Amino acid sequence: MDYKSIQVPGACYADFCLIPVGTGSPSVSTEVAEVQKLLKASGLKYTMHSAGTTVEGNWDEVFKVIGQAHTLVHSRGVARVQSSMRVGTRTDKKQTPEDKVRKVEEILAREQQ
Amino acid sequence: MDYKSIQVPGACYADFCLIPVGTGSPSVSTEVAEVQKLLKASGLKYTMHSAGTTVEGNWDEVFKVIGQAHTLVHSRGVARVQSSMRVGTRTDKKQTPEDKVRKVEEILAREQQ
Amino acid sequence: MDYKSIQVPGACYADFCLIPVGTGSPSVSTEVAEVQKLLKASGLKYTMHSAGTTVEGNWDEVFKVIGQAHTLVHSRGVARVQSSMRVGTRTDKKQTPEDKVRKVEEILAREQQ
Amino acid sequence: MDYKSIQVPGACYADFCLIPVGTGSPSVSTEVAEVQKLLKASGLKYTMHSAGTTVEGNWDEVFKVIGQAHTLVHSRGVARVQSSMRVGTRTDKKQTPEDKVRKVEEILAREQQ
Repeated sequence: MDYKSIQVPGACYADFCLIPVGTGSPSVSTEVAEVQKLLKASGLKYTMHSAGTTVEGNWDEVFKVIGQAHTLVHSRGVARVQSSMRVGTRTDKKQTPEDKVRKVEEILAREQQ
Repeated sequence: MDYKSIQVPGACYADFCLIPVGTGSPSVSTEVAEVQKLLKASGLKYTMHSAGTTVEGNWDEVFKVIGQAHTLVHSRGVARVQSSMRVGTRTDKKQTPEDKVRKVEEILAREQQ
Repeated sequence: MDYKSIQVPGACYADFCLIPVGTGSPSVSTEVAEVQKLLKASGLKYTMHSAGTTVEGNWDEVFKVIGQAHTLVHSRGVARVQSSMRVGTRTDKKQTPEDKVRKVEEILAREQQ
Repeated sequence: MDYKSIQVPGACYADFCLIPVGTGSPSVSTEVAEVQKLLKASGLKYTMHSAGTTVEGNWDEVFKVIGQAHTLVHSRGVARVQSSMRVGTRTDKKQTPEDKVRKVEEILAREQQ
């Protein structure tokens, strides 16, 4: 197989939680706020929730902005940065984050009737 | 050290994404809906978002309900279930999911002024 | 459905990476070493690798020891602890970590022939 | 700030666990074997363990190969692919996976003396 010619997926979502390691403070809100500003400037669609941020878009763009987020936090003097991520790709249909939540809510609503 | 006497943390949050493996369908919304009903019955505080569900509470109760979620999906004929989780504990202060989001939003709002 | 009567799974594996947040040092090896001693004392089967530790056993025992790991790190003055985890359960067969690696290696070896 | 000019980190490690969703079989070893062949062809350093695979290298290269892994599994007729990942970057020193494990083992060995 010609592995080199395999393309990355067109679209994906990545839900990530970035943690600055060794900052001397248990709070991470300052770094999280900085990352939100980076995401806003990227033009990609993103949603912050209490345990991370979900970014959607082209695979290369999504992982570029998460890489930039690591570099941004490093540039604030943080020597180590760790992210945990969930990444999903689908070929059967396009599904926005809102679609995913709505579908579950519709199933639950139908059962209530 | 007397490791046996170490207690689990009182409070925690766990943000988890449960995936039924080998169901024959790329859709997971039916299983996710079932888990939401289990979480509602548990009485624990939980918030669903597009990439998972965040549950808060006493460590033992949180991991009991996630274990029950695995068993519930198994009981629907799914032989394998995989969850990815982010778990956090703090001793310096109590912080609800809403507090965490609000703190970041306040930092961003202050910078806009 | 009687959700309260649902049991947690008998067996599971949890692969976890524990991060002390706010320690003032980018190194986590001291905390990781402490957790390895806790795991050894627990009697559960565990395997450390460069990106985490895989623990196997009864659901309640696995999540008790991970909870104890959080408490242990807190007891060393770390106010915030974050773990990322992958948790798997199966009902179709018992499979040790070694089985999983061996099965993939056998597939690869057969293809080499 | 000129966010656009921010570079992604030079080096990183990503520990990932890729799950084909909806295949009709609880086994994932065939897909995992295919991904191992892709990783071998990439020339990047990688280590398989029972709960995932750790890849090291340049940020762009690491996330390109994980993207190719998703595409590769999709090309086998799997409509949905989900990966959970742990990603780390450091600016204070270069540390191989072997260094990380050795450092913990050295701490434990010293304490045994």
